Amino acid sequence: KCAGHPEYRHCPGVETTTGPLGQGLGNSVGMAVAERFLAAHFNKPGFDLVSHRVIALCGDGDIMEGVGMEAASLAGHLKLSNLTWVYDANKITIDGGTDLCFSEDVAGRFEASGWHVVTATDANDVDHLDSCMQEAFGHELPTLVIVPSRIGYGSPNKENTSGAHGAPLGEEEIRLTKEALGCDPSQSFHVPSEVKDAMTQKALEQGAATENAWNEMFERYRAEWPAEAGQWDDIQAGRLPEGFDAELPTYAADAGSIASRKASGVALQSAAAAVPWMVGGSADLAGSNQTLLKGEDAQSAETPGGRNVFFGIREHVMASIANGMALSGLRPFVSTFLVFSDYCRSVHRLSAMMGLPVIYVYTHDSIGVGEDGPTHQPIEHVASLRSIPGLTVIRPADANETTEAWRSALARTDGPTALILSRQGLPTMDPDAVASATGVHRGAYVLCETKGGDPQIILMGTGSEVSLCMEAAEKLERDGRRVRVVSMPSWEMFETQDAAYRESVLPASCRCRVAIEAGATFGWERYVGLDGRVIGRDDFGASAPATQLFQEFGITADAILNAVSEIE
Amino acid sequence: KCAGHPEYRHCPGVETTTGPLGQGLGNSVGMAVAERFLAAHFNKPGFDLVSHRVIALCGDGDIMEGVGMEAASLAGHLKLSNLTWVYDANKITIDGGTDLCFSEDVAGRFEASGWHVVTATDANDVDHLDSCMQEAFGHELPTLVIVPSRIGYGSPNKENTSGAHGAPLGEEEIRLTKEALGCDPSQSFHVPSEVKDAMTQKALEQGAATENAWNEMFERYRAEWPAEAGQWDDIQAGRLPEGFDAELPTYAADAGSIASRKASGVALQSAAAAVPWMVGGSADLAGSNQTLLKGEDAQSAETPGGRNVFFGIREHVMASIANGMALSGLRPFVSTFLVFSDYCRSVHRLSAMMGLPVIYVYTHDSIGVGEDGPTHQPIEHVASLRSIPGLTVIRPADANETTEAWRSALARTDGPTALILSRQGLPTMDPDAVASATGVHRGAYVLCETKGGDPQIILMGTGSEVSLCMEAAEKLERDGRRVRVVSMPSWEMFETQDAAYRESVLPASCRCRVAIEAGATFGWERYVGLDGRVIGRDDFGASAPATQLFQEFGITADAILNAVSEIE
Repeated sequence: KCAGHPEYRHCPGVETTTGPLGQGLGNSVGMAVAERFLAAHFNKPGFDLVSHRVIALCGDGDIMEGVGMEAASLAGHLKLSNLTWVYDANKITIDGGTDLCFSEDVAGRFEASGWHVVTATDANDVDHLDSCMQEAFGHELPTLVIVPSRIGYGSPNKENTSGAHGAPLGEEEIRLTKEALGCDPSQSFHVPSEVKDAMTQKALEQGAATENAWNEMFERYRAEWPAEAGQWDDIQAGRLPEGFDAELPTYAADAGSIASRKASGVALQSAAAAVPWMVGGSADLAGSNQTLLKGEDAQSAETPGGRNVFFGIREHVMASIANGMALSGLRPFVSTFLVFSDYCRSVHRLSAMMGLPVIYVYTHDSIGVGEDGPTHQPIEHVASLRSIPGLTVIRPADANETTEAWRSALARTDGPTALILSRQGLPTMDPDAVASATGVHRGAYVLCETKGGDPQIILMGTGSEVSLCMEAAEKLERDGRRVRVVSMPSWEMFETQDAAYRESVLPASCRCRVAIEAGATFGWERYVGLDGRVIGRDDFGASAPATQLFQEFGITADAILNAVSEIE
Repeated sequence: KCAGHPEYRHCPGVETTTGPLGQGLGNSVGMAVAERFLAAHFNKPGFDLVSHRVIALCGDGDIMEGVGMEAASLAGHLKLSNLTWVYDANKITIDGGTDLCFSEDVAGRFEASGWHVVTATDANDVDHLDSCMQEAFGHELPTLVIVPSRIGYGSPNKENTSGAHGAPLGEEEIRLTKEALGCDPSQSFHVPSEVKDAMTQKALEQGAATENAWNEMFERYRAEWPAEAGQWDDIQAGRLPEGFDAELPTYAADAGSIASRKASGVALQSAAAAVPWMVGGSADLAGSNQTLLKGEDAQSAETPGGRNVFFGIREHVMASIANGMALSGLRPFVSTFLVFSDYCRSVHRLSAMMGLPVIYVYTHDSIGVGEDGPTHQPIEHVASLRSIPGLTVIRPADANETTEAWRSALARTDGPTALILSRQGLPTMDPDAVASATGVHRGAYVLCETKGGDPQIILMGTGSEVSLCMEAAEKLERDGRRVRVVSMPSWEMFETQDAAYRESVLPASCRCRVAIEAGATFGWERYVGLDGRVIGRDDFGASAPATQLFQEFGITADAILNAVSEIE
């Protein structure tokens, strides 16, 4: 099992994780940003509370992956002097030598990206490696320590071949290797006494002494800086400050039409004011995503306490960095257009696997994007995010639901949340005429109940399509039908409700069900069954004004009425 | 509308496309590889059939995106002398100046990646730019032409600001800009006569002469090289050679247990022998994916006709390159582990949008991966691929279905196919005891019908779980139940069948339905409805031998029996 595997989240002190290659490098940038941020906020004269370094071990694959290259580019720009990557440059991959596909001057590329580069001369000389690391630690730029090495070192027949990469050496070759290295081949899992002594003294005794000294310092810090110490405790415990959501906005019936991305921006400003360790940003769409924290600095070497991170046009590493920041105790949020969530795809599952409360803010959530056309219009994205285990997806229907979506995302401490938000304005539903938006916390809720007894028809939807359900329900009720409208912002949260609640929202006896969502219909059959209908869009979008697209593609209240009559 | 928009696939002669940033650069690498490959195969003494260059225009975002960096790294390694990128370096992004997030020495980075770099001095001097391009065209390496420019050039109030990036200048500013540039502000869409004349002479007349000369050359070529000319015709028409699938393998009942990735490898070798313009490879997993073409060269500057592309550990650009190769007429295949399809996520939708017949070979398709653990075990991936419009996903159940899956993927000319293949061995079903595997072409088919009349129970599954359906069906039949087993390798292909066929496979009257798949259950309710059951895995995997995982996670024939009794 690799040291980077997510199971290691249960080991205190071991923060790193990885997964598909290059992710760990993104994580390390997030951890280095977090270290610098925490030092800026918590260190005080005489109290170097935060002064650790972030070290990532990587191989040829990490250096080749685009996400690793994005990580290098941004780390160089940010001048993360506390970051060191140690590159095990053995030039062997699974398919063979790296000369099959990789001939970069890696040192040159990193220097061009604002890194200091140290190249080791002997991968097996510990003192030499130690001096390389000291040079890295002393430099004002992030440093790449290139360690040219031989994979399978000591193996007479497999050293320096891809045979030593993905498969065990085998019994006989292990014997030969031990002999070649001067070890006793009859001994297995043998720890020589000098190794044991060194580990005991350096890792355990020195470590304990360092920890004790830090703990004593922190008690003095607590006496002198009680408010900061309390925040520190919150961060370590993964808690938010009391009343963190007290100032989240609510909206009255006369609030009019508000894009949910705008309501999201208002909620974010309120939350960020209450939680000083919320840090995040956008991949060059901060204005559109409404995720620029007002009055806060950009994260940089000059302003290390800055809470606005300008990730550049680098979505993949943006998300990986968020994972790294969350591993270090910050509450990160990251944002881009929903259609570009594809670039962050693999990162969501790692957030979920590691139980990290990253908030993904995805705006421009449907064909409602309008003229930018099919490459910029998400279709399958909400469905594909819902398919990821452990990721909570919330697509709120109006400004009040958006506030509750944020409350829920903030309150979640054990996993990631994706907020799916509209570009276009959504009518604010009259709080006196519909159920309370706090229903969001149950994933789905009866937004508007028929007046005449048990419903004959259930209409359900999310986001911008909930108002279409309301419009269709009104017409059907006028025709004497008994219609229930269910707002269903989060399938994942609904699935965690008990069976009785779920039955109370979607009674098994009512089979005339129509679901509507401006995206792939994929998966909605879970709630409408074989007898119901789903209205959506199962092909790509097109370039036209949003209202025209909704009409052309038949995502309308009339389509709901047609579907009802088809069922009946 | 950008020049890169996919609608342009309908314009003859305009091959490029893009979408999310950086994709176009990957496409351009694929097109340059294709140009070199086609020249190696079709050019003959006196017949320079293929000698065009590939030019990509890009901006700061393309240069920042990881996929663009992967493209640069591989293009440098491949020494694509026929490739030129023109980088409009205006240093303005949507959020503001690139100094917010980007401070690379771009020229240095590209030089370190094996590129020649030319830096223009004046973005508005056409003769100068022309000489920069000539320098690029004459160089033996791929060349980056950096053109420092000013966005919104000529606009007195918006030049060199992000205000000129995402929004129109506005009427008044357009007037001021025209004045500043010495144009008549009262004229709109005005084409000066010198521009018109130059375009007529250079683009139309010169272009027509060049085309005529080429056509004449090709007719002489056809006389001298009729076989090659025939292949050329096939490529231009997107046809495969007649009998391309004649040698695809079939398997008898005694073939035993065969991993579908292995059966896929056999089919691929057969197809590649019949279709000389199939070109592809793997992101460093060629052996595991079984996608190394036997007896064929690696693609390189020295062997430009090489059909094995070693993409390196760069999944994202691998897929983008495949799109570029397909745009140029090749039949590309690319491969990696299914779990890493996340890295190629956005590319599938572009293959689909552009109607490109790329074959994605995804092996190691479930928790059947075993000890590599949750980061390497796909769960949600099949569901999330199914959600992409226009992508055909096929997960075959045994070696014969795998052959048919390949036949189907090859025959498809208007869009991409993803083959989902097992790491572990799958029993070969006795062709005499089950329906013909040609049922794969209808997406779902009755694999094994009950002996006693109409079925009471329908069991359905894909891939490795079909044999579990067979096992459960046998037990239920022994208990006197009437059971139908449906193999359902491709939902997309099933959905294109007519209603009568779909009803014949899944009759509406039979509601006792169980679906099983070793992955997310997401979406299966489409076929089992509110009354059925889905057996799968809706949380991450774990590290253990595959057989143990299937037991632990309850993906077994016994689980099917339990589900049936729960329904009844």
